Order: sequence, then C-alpha cells, then structure tokens
Amino acid sequence: MNCKKSISLHKKFGGKLEIKSKFKIKTKTDLSLAYTPCVAEISSAIAKNKKLAKEYTIKKNTIAVVSDGSAVLGLGNIGAEAAIPVMEGKAILFKELADVDAFPICLKTQDPDEIIQIVKNIAPVFGGINLEDISAPNCFYIEEKLQEIGIPVMHDDQHGTAIVVIAALINALRAIEREISSMKIVITGAGAAGTAISKMIARELRPKDIIMCDSKGIISKKRKDLSPAKTKLLKIGNKDNKQGSMEDALLNADIFIGVSSGGILNTDMIRTMNQNPIIFAMANPTPEIMPDEAKKGGASVIGTGRSDFPNQINNVLAFPGIFRGLLDSGTAKITNEMKISAAKALADYVKNPTVKKILPNPLDKNVSKAIAKSIMKSK
Amino acid sequence: MNCKKSISLHKKFGGKLEIKSKFKIKTKTDLSLAYTPCVAEISSAIAKNKKLAKEYTIKKNTIAVVSDGSAVLGLGNIGAEAAIPVMEGKAILFKELADVDAFPICLKTQDPDEIIQIVKNIAPVFGGINLEDISAPNCFYIEEKLQEIGIPVMHDDQHGTAIVVIAALINALRAIEREISSMKIVITGAGAAGTAISKMIARELRPKDIIMCDSKGIISKKRKDLSPAKTKLLKIGNKDNKQGSMEDALLNADIFIGVSSGGILNTDMIRTMNQNPIIFAMANPTPEIMPDEAKKGGASVIGTGRSDFPNQINNVLAFPGIFRGLLDSGTAKITNEMKISAAKALADYVKNPTVKKILPNPLDKNVSKAIAKSIMKSK
Repeated sequence: MNCKKSISLHKKFGGKLEIKSKFKIKTKTDLSLAYTPCVAEISSAIAKNKKLAKEYTIKKNTIAVVSDGSAVLGLGNIGAEAAIPVMEGKAILFKELADVDAFPICLKTQDPDEIIQIVKNIAPVFGGINLEDISAPNCFYIEEKLQEIGIPVMHDDQHGTAIVVIAALINALRAIEREISSMKIVITGAGAAGTAISKMIARELRPKDIIMCDSKGIISKKRKDLSPAKTKLLKIGNKDNKQGSMEDALLNADIFIGVSSGGILNTDMIRTMNQNPIIFAMANPTPEIMPDEAKKGGASVIGTGRSDFPNQINNVLAFPGIFRGLLDSGTAKITNEMKISAAKALADYVKNPTVKKILPNPLDKNVSKAIAKSIMKSK
Repeated sequence: MNCKKSISLHKKFGGKLEIKSKFKIKTKTDLSLAYTPCVAEISSAIAKNKKLAKEYTIKKNTIAVVSDGSAVLGLGNIGAEAAIPVMEGKAILFKELADVDAFPICLKTQDPDEIIQIVKNIAPVFGGINLEDISAPNCFYIEEKLQEIGIPVMHDDQHGTAIVVIAALINALRAIEREISSMKIVITGAGAAGTAISKMIARELRPKDIIMCDSKGIISKKRKDLSPAKTKLLKIGNKDNKQGSMEDALLNADIFIGVSSGGILNTDMIRTMNQNPIIFAMANPTPEIMPDEAKKGGASVIGTGRSDFPNQINNVLAFPGIFRGLLDSGTAKITNEMKISAAKALADYVKNPTVKKILPNPLDKNVSKAIAKSIMKSK
C-alpha cells in the first residue's frame, strides 16, 4: 500500500474530523433557538432532571474514544499526540458504520488513577466511553474502576477483539462442522486482546482446554515471572499444567489464535497440531504465519487481521454496532450477556459460512444494525 | 420569545452537534488511507515530531469549550450536564462564524486544581481552550495556571466580554466625539466580566478614573469584606478613595458599565451623572436599566446585551475571531497586545459609528476575519 496520498490528505484537511451544527443558523431567530435566550430553558430543564441530558444534548449520541497513547497499533508507546490520527480514524468508522458521533480524547498522562479520575470528570457530555490502545495491565484496572460511572465503558482492544474472534470461531466451526467441546486451543499473546479472548472463549464456548502463551512460552503454574494479570489466566485453562514453549503447546492442539508477533508460527509447527486445525494469525501488519504457509501445514480455516486476505478478523466489525446498541438501549453498563449476543449476531449475519467466508465485509453498514439489535435485546 | 420550538428541536436532533468525517469512506482503499495501514505512517511521523499534530490532526482547527457549570448564563451553578446545551450553542457559533471546530467539555468537578490538571491532560488533541461559565474567583486562578500549557487558553467571560465592551466604548466615544482621558467610569459587577473590563480599560484606554461597585456598593480601601480578587481591584481605580453606594459612585460620572443585575439603575440616578453619559446596561436578560428609561435620563449612547435593542454588546462578536486568529497564528499564548488589537479591529469594522450603531451585526461572518487578522498581526 502506497500511503503518500494519505499523508497529503491528512495535511490538506488538517485532521479527519469536523464538528458541525445540526441546527440551521441563518437568522437571529435561529440563533435565539440554538443559543440565548432559549438555551436557558433547555439548561434549566436539565438542571432539574439530569437524565434529560440524554434527550436534549449530544450525550444522546456521542462517545469519547479515550487513549493514553501507550499501546497504539503495532507502534507501541508513542504518546498522546501520535495517537490522535488513530483515534480520529476510529471516530470516522463509528460515524460511517453506525452513525455514532465519536470524539478523540488523547491524554497526556499514563497514570491509571489519573486516567480514571479524568474520564469520570469528562463523562457528563458523553453517552459512552471507548477505551483504546491503553497498554496491559493498566487497561484492565482502568476499565474495571470505570464500570460504575453511569455510562457504559468498554476497552475495545479487549472486548471488541474478543467478540469478533468468537464470531469468527463460531463460523469456522460451522464451516468445518465440528464441535468445540473436544478441541484444544492455543492462544499466543497475553496482553489486552489475548486475555479477553481467552476469558470469553472459556466462559461462553467451553472448549476442552485453552493454553495461553506469551513471548516466554506457556503460561503455567511453574513460571516465576508472571504478573498478577497473567497469574489470573491460570484459572482459565491449561488444565494439565503443561509447561514449555509455544511449540510444546501446539502439539495435538486444534485451534491457534495469535494476537502476538509476526512470523512466530511455521508450517512444520502446524503439522504437529491435530488434523485440519483452525488458524487465526492476527498480528499486524505481519501475521504469525502467512495464509499460504498455514494452508501448506494443513489448516482448514485461516483468518488474519488483514484486508488483503480472506477472513479479515477486525474489530471494526464489532465496535460501531456495540456502541450503537449501548447508546440506544440507554444502559449504564455493558454486560457479558451483551458481549456474547453481539458475537452470535455477528456470526449469524453470515448466512452460510464457508472456510473462505466466516465474517461479513467490514464496510457493510447493516452489520452494526444487527449487533446493536442484539445488544438491545440482551439488556 | 417563544422557546417551544427550541425544545422540540433539541429533542428531535438529540443535541446540536455532530462529528463528521472530512475523508470520503466508500471503499477499502478509502479505509486504508484514513485508518490502517496508512494511519501508522501519520502516527509515526508525529511520534518523531509532536509539532506535526498541528498539521496532520484535528489539533489544527479544534478547540475545547471547557466549563464546570458553576456560573452558566444567568442561571448560576447548575452543574455540568445542564451546561452542555450552552457549550454546544457556543460550538455552533464558533463553526458558523469562524469555521473553528469546537467541542464541549463539561466537567463534573468544580475543584480548580482538578480542573487545571484535567485541562492539561486533555490538551494534546486541542489547538486552544475556551474556558466558559466558570465562577469567580476560580476562573482567575484556573486561567492563570493554564497559561504555560503550550496552547492558548482564554476565559471568554472575562476577555471576550472585555474586548467587545472596549470596542463598544471606543465607538461610543467616536460617535459623540469625546476623549476618555477626562471621563470617569462606574462599573457595576465585580465578577469575571467586571474585573476583566476594568483592567483592560485601565491598561488600554486610561480614563480619568474607574470606580468599581459590587452588590454592597463602592469597592474601597475601607471595605473589610473584600475577597483577595476584589482587593486587587483597588489598584485599578478609585483614586480619591470614594466610599458609599452605587448612587454615590454615579455622581458626576460619565460612563456606566453594568455587568451586574437587572433594574438596579434608574432615570434619576442617570441625571446625577455628568451630561450625556454613556450607558452600557448589559445584565441579561433584564438590563440594569431599559434603553428608553436611560434615554429619559439623558444618556447619549445606550447599549445592552440584548438582540432586540440597538447596540447589542455581546461577546459572540469576539470569541470566534479570536480563536480563529489564535489557531491560524500558531501562538502558544494570548497576549494583552492581541486582546487590544482585537478590540480595535472590532471597533474599526464599523466605518462610521453613530449613537445607534456602535457595533457590527453579530451574524456578520466578516467580523471574525477582521479580528483574526488583527490577532495574527500582533503576534
């Protein structure tokens, strides 16, 4: 992809978003209706009943995309300013795919308690908070502490990703007509995405086992170097307390889910897995293994994060519809029921899943409608 | 004014603002240019040179309108949620009159140090901060502490108002062909607006004297009840250390500037002033004195804050152009030179000021251009 045009477009427009009025302002009467004196009546009504902010103000349809710039794309800790173009891009997708107004809030601080306090204080104007590109383990702590602020808060790198992976997995299993209860899963990458994926799979799909790996190998009880967040993962799977490298984990596994680093998987390793494994290699921009190599190893269903291969597993399929549903339902919190409903709705959106088509086109605007509906139903 | 239509419009639209994409997103290529993979190049460039955020992101043209809801319109301390419609209205005016993208940030906290810390942390995405409807004396402290954050910060209730009042005063003096150096001014209201007006007049116009009054009368050295902010005002004027009521202050004064409460001035009081005084009665929605009453008392030039009388003295004449100029000049701070240039540019915009026409029409879009130009020149 040649990105020269992208640079010139960003420069030409000076950013990707603009803030427009829904009111027509041509005459003094228009001004009176939108601003003084009439706005005083709107404000007085809300002062008496705060809930009316959800009817009379942008709180009804606006969310914040909040990042501290600590884990942006594959670029890492690049800071608040450098995170802005990504958050703007996300805001565009919210608007285009689900008519959600989203505004980027990029924070100078990377202190989790300070982030929590800021989000609480800016919450009045927003109907929801999409936490984005905040590194683990801070992202877990921040999200947890923000669950009671009265508007839904979701860290998309965790749950948006998990929802799409689970939808992809449901349809991959449909395509090859297999049941997950007898299958063993290996997940590489134990950060935000890997953690949320493993938890959601364990809770909702109940496979035979899940073995998590980080860059040092299998996460097992014998490991002395585990962070508290990784120690918690021991409860999710690895029932036989397997130890060793990622290769050891793959032996006789049925499903590989990679949210780790490019090129860490190869054809020979896939051959040590059980027959016709499912391979989701989602590292960006270089997958854990390229699709043609995975196929050589005998993979049945192959997905990546990239738009130039079949089966793109990208959270853009979920987040617009999720927040559309959260805003429309007026809920104060996203629940596990909503998350699995969203995953099932996304899977069901593909009428006849095949090994080459397990997920919809990311630009199909009806996907967000189906997900929003599922969220509202499970309220 | 019947505001029923305003309520139904606010309800119909669910707030007044929407966030739109400047990029066209129809194809996967569009998506690649606005979001992944190309956005990584934009982010990497900014990570290397933070200043590029002002070229490639919404920081170039976006400001925050920040309020804690502590002093909203004439409604007082109505809180963050109830402040939203006012800040949205302001954002509309920024866009319509000066093509500035403005986003409302309404804060739950009213603790000045917490507000300072939050504004510092959300600053990366903004090119400027318009502080709004924050009560005195917190507004002075907050604004002062935010002067070094690298983007211009201005409390509009102070300086926007002062700039427009000074422009009005310059043209009132032109209309009646008088010099201010021999004139005595009485200002009623010693909050955010009154304080900024008195300081700017003293600094830039040098009248014979300025006497400030609050609800308890003249601010003089003998007063034991003065706050630290009001004590500072003693340096600005009241050279003869006059004491007593507002009526005592008015005796032989030439100019009345009211930013206080409706109805506190009457015809008889104006008659005790020097001949043909200038009366700016800007309390909202009820002025300190109605224009016809002021005229009976012998006033030469009369201005109010209202759109239904001649000479509307409203800060909408200033803030759009000020921030247009601040953004375009790339300055890190607003200076006194910029403020007085803006006031002079606003006054000069009216070619032949008369007692009935001292300021332009608030919806004239060329006003903001003239002010922006003056700010850029005085950089």
